[in-house]
Amino acid sequence: MSILQRLSFNQITADPWSLEQAVEHCSRSGVPFIAAWRHKLDGDAAKASSLIRSAGLRVSSLCRGGWFSAPTAEERRNRIADNRIAIEEAALLGAPVLVIVSGPANGQTLADARATVLDGLLEVLPDAEKAGVVLGIEPLHPMYAAERSVVVTLKQANDIADRLQSPSAGVVVDAYHVWWDPEVTNEIERARGKIVGFHVSDWPVPLPGILMGRAMMGDGVIDLRQLRQAVDKTGYDGPIEVEIFNEDVWKSADNRLMERIQRCFAEYV
Amino acid sequence: MSILQRLSFNQITADPWSLEQAVEHCSRSGVPFIAAWRHKLDGDAAKASSLIRSAGLRVSSLCRGGWFSAPTAEERRNRIADNRIAIEEAALLGAPVLVIVSGPANGQTLADARATVLDGLLEVLPDAEKAGVVLGIEPLHPMYAAERSVVVTLKQANDIADRLQSPSAGVVVDAYHVWWDPEVTNEIERARGKIVGFHVSDWPVPLPGILMGRAMMGDGVIDLRQLRQAVDKTGYDGPIEVEIFNEDVWKSADNRLMERIQRCFAEYV
Repeated sequence: MSILQRLSFNQITADPWSLEQAVEHCSRSGVPFIAAWRHKLDGDAAKASSLIRSAGLRVSSLCRGGWFSAPTAEERRNRIADNRIAIEEAALLGAPVLVIVSGPANGQTLADARATVLDGLLEVLPDAEKAGVVLGIEPLHPMYAAERSVVVTLKQANDIADRLQSPSAGVVVDAYHVWWDPEVTNEIERARGKIVGFHVSDWPVPLPGILMGRAMMGDGVIDLRQLRQAVDKTGYDGPIEVEIFNEDVWKSADNRLMERIQRCFAEYV
Repeated sequence: MSILQRLSFNQITADPWSLEQAVEHCSRSGVPFIAAWRHKLDGDAAKASSLIRSAGLRVSSLCRGGWFSAPTAEERRNRIADNRIAIEEAALLGAPVLVIVSGPANGQTLADARATVLDGLLEVLPDAEKAGVVLGIEPLHPMYAAERSVVVTLKQANDIADRLQSPSAGVVVDAYHVWWDPEVTNEIERARGKIVGFHVSDWPVPLPGILMGRAMMGDGVIDLRQLRQAVDKTGYDGPIEVEIFNEDVWKSADNRLMERIQRCFAEYV
């Protein structure tokens, strides 16, 4: 099987595109999977699902739930409610995985925020189980600890998945977020059977920015193939999402983007 | 003892100042320690030492050695030679510690670069022992893995110090670099007896930039007191360096900078 048969186009890579446009580009290029973002569903996940399916595509994941670590009890309740909606949307969309970005410290201590994340996941886990959706806990790079995610290592994500102990709890490995980690190979191996997503992009040198600085595969220093092989070795043979946050890619997103992604994916992943 | 008696002014906090100016500012404000940078010594560490001592100050560390992970054999030999000079300078300066920033991947795999760092340290360790200088291995934040340091966690630094097994091998804990790490409290405890420096600054939200984005203590989200107490609990009672890379601080460095540092240090560290 060609590695291209595992390629999933994560919508955020071309955020200016509507879901229709993204689906059309994927379909035309033979990209088999798409990862959808909630803000692109227009509140109608069932309609989005039929749009995607009628183009012959499959959904790899829905981005995203989480953000549990709100500082007040009321906001935390709102976050739980929103995660329940996200789980429902994932089910309607036919997304096997809801990607979980846990949320930042938000003025709490890291320990408190991390406890809140675990509490939130425990609270929505039964909903995910009932819906047949897997919560894919994605550690983010430590540089996002203050603003996006207090879960910053694959070890943490594995620890959380161990605590949740459910077929609806898994981990997502994003190369950009974990490549630096001296423990990454061990923790990928430890995640055997729990890996529900693998994301690729690259880390350019110098890094142009913290949020939007990701690069196309091959335009940075991450050994993507080594990470992919480590993930494969655990038995994961599911879709591999190309998720690039980069404004230049957004600006230049045209008919040639998919071809470039496929070429770089085949060469470096 | 007032915590201010442990304050060390790391020169890079006001890079526009010459060593003379930095010493004068410290001395006038009663700051007891200074951390010197090699590019400020004008190639004459002995003269710098007498300048510092005659103002009644002590040196906490010399910044910096390391950068071992060069991609070619010749460059690696040059780096070793330069580290030997740095050790000599630290001895002449009376700096008990040479801060080690290990160096980036530089086109090598992370595993290879990390092996090169260990080799480099093993090679210069006898020189440090002979000179009575401690190599202070400082893990840098993982966002610097590509450009500055393949040593990115305190666990790694502790592992290296364990391998070196020498009174001339220790670790430096910089709050900005380690605060995000779920293992930090355990690894600080593990570093008992090996901690040879503690650095403070803060992580502002949003982070304005990768290299120059550090903030004054209290202007960010790091729980500096908790980290300081964890470090103290290991028995470390040495100087605490204020090391802020921030161009706004550079631009506004004047007579009031020391007072502001002392106030924020007392309040947040």
